[in-house]
Amino acid sequence: MADSKPLLSLDWDPVAAEALLRDVFGIVVDEVVWKGTRATEKCHYSIKKGAAFLGLGTDSVRVVMADERGKMIPEDLERQISLAEAEGVVPFLVSATSGTTVLGAFDPLEAIADVCQHHGLWLHVDAAWGGSVLLSQTHRHLLDGIQRADSVAWNPHKLLTAGLQCSALLLRDTTNLLKRCHGSQASYLFQQDKFYDVALDTGDKVVQCGRRVDCLKLWLMWKAQGGQGLERRVDQAFALAGYLVEEMKKREGFELVMEPEFVNVCFWFVPPSLRGKQGSLDYSGRLAKVAPVLKERMVKEGSMMIGYQPHGTRGNFFRMIVANPALTQADLDFLLDELERLGQDL
Amino acid sequence: MADSKPLLSLDWDPVAAEALLRDVFGIVVDEVVWKGTRATEKCHYSIKKGAAFLGLGTDSVRVVMADERGKMIPEDLERQISLAEAEGVVPFLVSATSGTTVLGAFDPLEAIADVCQHHGLWLHVDAAWGGSVLLSQTHRHLLDGIQRADSVAWNPHKLLTAGLQCSALLLRDTTNLLKRCHGSQASYLFQQDKFYDVALDTGDKVVQCGRRVDCLKLWLMWKAQGGQGLERRVDQAFALAGYLVEEMKKREGFELVMEPEFVNVCFWFVPPSLRGKQGSLDYSGRLAKVAPVLKERMVKEGSMMIGYQPHGTRGNFFRMIVANPALTQADLDFLLDELERLGQDL
Repeated sequence: MADSKPLLSLDWDPVAAEALLRDVFGIVVDEVVWKGTRATEKCHYSIKKGAAFLGLGTDSVRVVMADERGKMIPEDLERQISLAEAEGVVPFLVSATSGTTVLGAFDPLEAIADVCQHHGLWLHVDAAWGGSVLLSQTHRHLLDGIQRADSVAWNPHKLLTAGLQCSALLLRDTTNLLKRCHGSQASYLFQQDKFYDVALDTGDKVVQCGRRVDCLKLWLMWKAQGGQGLERRVDQAFALAGYLVEEMKKREGFELVMEPEFVNVCFWFVPPSLRGKQGSLDYSGRLAKVAPVLKERMVKEGSMMIGYQPHGTRGNFFRMIVANPALTQADLDFLLDELERLGQDL
Repeated sequence: MADSKPLLSLDWDPVAAEALLRDVFGIVVDEVVWKGTRATEKCHYSIKKGAAFLGLGTDSVRVVMADERGKMIPEDLERQISLAEAEGVVPFLVSATSGTTVLGAFDPLEAIADVCQHHGLWLHVDAAWGGSVLLSQTHRHLLDGIQRADSVAWNPHKLLTAGLQCSALLLRDTTNLLKRCHGSQASYLFQQDKFYDVALDTGDKVVQCGRRVDCLKLWLMWKAQGGQGLERRVDQAFALAGYLVEEMKKREGFELVMEPEFVNVCFWFVPPSLRGKQGSLDYSGRLAKVAPVLKERMVKEGSMMIGYQPHGTRGNFFRMIVANPALTQADLDFLLDELERLGQDL
């Protein structure tokens, strides 16, 4: 089963497209700031929504195939660009993902950057979820190539658990791009005759006007934990996810969707009545009904909150995110025991 | 001197415009949610910025004249609509303001609603700042006609001092418009097979994905203070603003920009060297340089923070917002004394 990835294109003539590029770059990029967080895998939720809000229309978003693990296939990106150009439209941005929402997949950024470089396309990396991995010497190789991106979105409120909301947009551009694209020079709000450097007033660059100082959370956390403290958080999350996977393999009621490469542990709980019935025709359909029932039970019990979702042709499965630095192996043992307890009659 | 007000129009053909109306309504309306807060007076900061982000382009925003107090002139709105239609473009939304940022002006909503009704235009009221006045039996007449609006934006984090950010969008529509316009049905985030009414999951209606539960602040505050408690806040703010104005009239160094109708007290501090020189040619230019100097001094002193801005042909003046429910007359006396002290050598 293949996933798909977004490639943005404009179906206007090259002159109009060029005139729009500057604005659109800023806009699409900033969209990642206000959207918050979601990966582009499968439904392209934020990218398509952004295209709709920006007036580009959702048809401007083209999907690129991904492999079974949810990683973009660079050869298909190349193919989609050729197809788009053959139709006379002008591709301008590729949105790759480092750490997709459901499977936690990391796209092959070096190969994608090669394609972007060859065609002169803006490379955006949605590292909202996976960007924090860069803090780990052990695991940062997952993002090899991200240094070639034109823009990167990163949410420290995810893996690093800064308070909601804390979103960073990193740009290669050093010419004050956001100011040039979005600045509206409202002199009644952003006075130019202040006694300090007014370049410090960043409000005019962004969508919102009244907003919280979210960057302070990251700064404080980094000061308090240090780079090594944050690295430990990331490494511990990987280690605990690995522990959970190994424990699942020891129990007969758990079936992994795949070996995780990140801290997304995707699995089915197979209740007693379905064990050994993998070959039956209605197995998948019945298995897909298990997660909603267990979710209802755990919520009403008040014992846990684990998300589930369908994904492509796969029916509902749980997605356990092992990220909270306060988690221990005992918590994960509890999780497995509790699922078995809640699902023993199913 | 006249201000100007925004009138949005689309310079596309009627069929295309009609197809866009549904999306655009939702989008422009929601823009008021994410922009936060600013009034449309003079620079049309948020409206123009929204039009740029939405891909409509800032040229789609037409300005309507306002009177000396910053109130929209309905006759000019009528004239602008005729002009737009004569050019073959399709007006679709009028953004009126209840409580402009600088002057605190309330547009004549009844007359504007008449125009909108006559032409079939969406009436949006940006009541971000002034909407809280509805809680006061004494002052709510300032918003007469707001019940005819199609959409209203209101920021309880302003006059009611809920914690940043707390923005409400009120819609006349009861057919789940935002869901229909913005929903992108990301099944991996917004599962439909939950055990409770999934209409309670509002996330798919809005721009952001990961976001705080800002409405809780309003709910808690309202529960804690009651309608009467919040009404007292509003009435007290009006009373204190009136006190400040009367005290200013007793001191020779203060010149009001106008009698306020809201809690925005706009004034110049006239330093000793400029008193009695109103007739001199360079008076306005020299007066405009006073506020930035005083602002620098109060900030470095750490004693106060009062905003200033130019406005139309008026040079820099202070805009004291009397809103904090903890303010007392003594605080306002201090403000006046402190300005006199900081400006005595100017």
